[in-house]
Amino acid sequence: MRESQAHRGTPCNTPRLLRLLNTLRPTLPDPRGPAGAGHPAGPGGGRTGRGTPVRDDEGVTSPTPLRITALAGGVGGARFLRGLLAHLRASGDPARREAEVTVISNTADDVVLHGLRISPDLDSVMYTLGGGIDEVRGWGRSQESDGVARELAAYGAGPSWFTLGDKDIATHLVRTRMLAEGSTLSQATAVLCERWRPGVRLLPMTDDVVQTHVDLAAVDPALHHGEAGGRRVHFQEWWVRLHAAVPALWIEPVGAATATPAPGVLEAVTQADALILPPSNPVVSIGTILSVPGIREAVVEGPAPVVGVSPVIGGAPVRGMADACLASIGVPTTAAAVAGLYADFLDGWLVAEGDEAPTTPGLVVQHRPLLMSDPTTTTALAGAALDLALAVDRKDRAA
Amino acid sequence: MRESQAHRGTPCNTPRLLRLLNTLRPTLPDPRGPAGAGHPAGPGGGRTGRGTPVRDDEGVTSPTPLRITALAGGVGGARFLRGLLAHLRASGDPARREAEVTVISNTADDVVLHGLRISPDLDSVMYTLGGGIDEVRGWGRSQESDGVARELAAYGAGPSWFTLGDKDIATHLVRTRMLAEGSTLSQATAVLCERWRPGVRLLPMTDDVVQTHVDLAAVDPALHHGEAGGRRVHFQEWWVRLHAAVPALWIEPVGAATATPAPGVLEAVTQADALILPPSNPVVSIGTILSVPGIREAVVEGPAPVVGVSPVIGGAPVRGMADACLASIGVPTTAAAVAGLYADFLDGWLVAEGDEAPTTPGLVVQHRPLLMSDPTTTTALAGAALDLALAVDRKDRAA
Repeated sequence: MRESQAHRGTPCNTPRLLRLLNTLRPTLPDPRGPAGAGHPAGPGGGRTGRGTPVRDDEGVTSPTPLRITALAGGVGGARFLRGLLAHLRASGDPARREAEVTVISNTADDVVLHGLRISPDLDSVMYTLGGGIDEVRGWGRSQESDGVARELAAYGAGPSWFTLGDKDIATHLVRTRMLAEGSTLSQATAVLCERWRPGVRLLPMTDDVVQTHVDLAAVDPALHHGEAGGRRVHFQEWWVRLHAAVPALWIEPVGAATATPAPGVLEAVTQADALILPPSNPVVSIGTILSVPGIREAVVEGPAPVVGVSPVIGGAPVRGMADACLASIGVPTTAAAVAGLYADFLDGWLVAEGDEAPTTPGLVVQHRPLLMSDPTTTTALAGAALDLALAVDRKDRAA
Repeated sequence: MRESQAHRGTPCNTPRLLRLLNTLRPTLPDPRGPAGAGHPAGPGGGRTGRGTPVRDDEGVTSPTPLRITALAGGVGGARFLRGLLAHLRASGDPARREAEVTVISNTADDVVLHGLRISPDLDSVMYTLGGGIDEVRGWGRSQESDGVARELAAYGAGPSWFTLGDKDIATHLVRTRMLAEGSTLSQATAVLCERWRPGVRLLPMTDDVVQTHVDLAAVDPALHHGEAGGRRVHFQEWWVRLHAAVPALWIEPVGAATATPAPGVLEAVTQADALILPPSNPVVSIGTILSVPGIREAVVEGPAPVVGVSPVIGGAPVRGMADACLASIGVPTTAAAVAGLYADFLDGWLVAEGDEAPTTPGLVVQHRPLLMSDPTTTTALAGAALDLALAVDRKDRAA
């Protein structure tokens, strides 16, 4: 069916939705989302292709494209997902090559600074997969400038510890404006992705406001840049300003208990052929996503096997300060202990060579190189995770 | 009294108000405003210095400092005011040298774009007097960059016809955030002026939202870049996008009728020793300020003589497109006709050499070079306006 192929390959015209923005009126994106090339249906979109055999260019009937759903945080998740897409698009198997990937993004790192709604994890995934990421820092835009930030500093308008580049600010302006005009975070994300075309369906975990707050232990200000602790701060202040060096007594995704999953999230979990947990922070990224009522239940009860990649290698986090987060909940920084956080649903677990395998009954553990130090290694790691997901038996998760 | 001099000359420390901003909590500036050098009391501030003789360095008693209030629009008003300050600060007369200048700024050009509250006239005065203006364009910041704007364009987020530089955006972010957190435009302006120290007390005409809207005549789209007219647009769209080339059937400061003057505005009018009208647009700048209930009445009934500078030379506006505005209200573009708009209170009027003097009874007209082509000419023009204000008899404005 050349038509089907042609439809998939049709480049999108200037996005309708963005032209609407020019009218200065509230923008309500098509709830089925954009239909551009490489961009599966948006939030709430039907999966009408499901069950329809796909033929390749020779007219040979192929297996149904895989549906893969990942729960992801920021930098580590984004890099893993880039490897996953590279693996899929280069695959000789049409079911993988045509696979639809949905990413459920943590939004509890979101923060409002200078009146701008900033969604660090959504943006890290969007920029990384869309080719706009700063490869050196791993976050923010490439070839960024700081014209606005320097002026904000000249006004004495803080905080100074959170870097906002000019290009990045444009993203936040579009998002903030849409939210102010009544759009949801899902809709704003879909509009932003119209430009970046990340090649995945990118969904916030919720359209409700959830913010991770951290109760700081009392500490000696002389040792912590004047911070005495003993107070509650936004996650970003703990993470970025204090480098998570002040011990956290308690980490809480405020608002999560009353949040509802964003449109498409539960369906993406329950209709997936494979659920993947990239090496994202088990507490403040994946843990937070799972704390939105309904999501963990869908993961546990859904039919898809779940395979994760350990964010811990040899007792230390691969990136970031996951050890500080794990300590706050009394969990050791080991690959085995992190697997324990997912014990109610995890079917497969990739750990680094030399790391101890967890002994969870029914859990299939494989040792693999986990350091995503280059595209080849990352692609291989993502492929291994998918291979394992398609190989393991979904374990019995008796209700 | 050295103490008094010393107080005036004390450089301000890091602004208290701006440090408050760093707390991410709503900022409520001291209602008496900042007390920095060269920066008279803020909105609602007492004029406790009034009536107290001032001594110069030799201990000689000087006349009380003059209190001068100006109603101003954007670029033209700002340049005139810079000339006025230059005249005052260089004056050998302590009453002028120490004069306190209050500027009541038009805010009906204000517009919200990309969710940012933009106050073009306030900013033009603030940047021009604070040394941050782009001297070539006459508006916006010097050495400006467009990192954000190019990204907004890449998102297709309009409008494309309004230029927002990176530095300028920082100003709008501070203002927008303060307004969102419950501060008034007066308070936001005071905080911004803490940095710019314009040397005047800069007051918005009102803290309420007033927006000038324009009813466009129906026109041939082929002659107007696709604009067919026959609709109502924001002033900025008419002025910036359409260059006021589509005739205006009606220009209305929407919201003015129910607005109240900002704190300090009426007092600045009624307690002034001289009221000055710079060569600002008589319809959409000065006319709009006067349309806020109470302001025109205060000008008419107050004790201060009123002197204006014609914004029209030889039948054409000095800058901008005031002719298009005057046409919409059926007033010819002549210095005499503009004076007629102020007939109920105008005592003195400066017109260009060769321009016909209005014949309004009791109005003193002087011919002067009006083109503010260089600082010397501008300073002389401002000095002439003040000279005239202090020389004319305030005419009888029988109630």
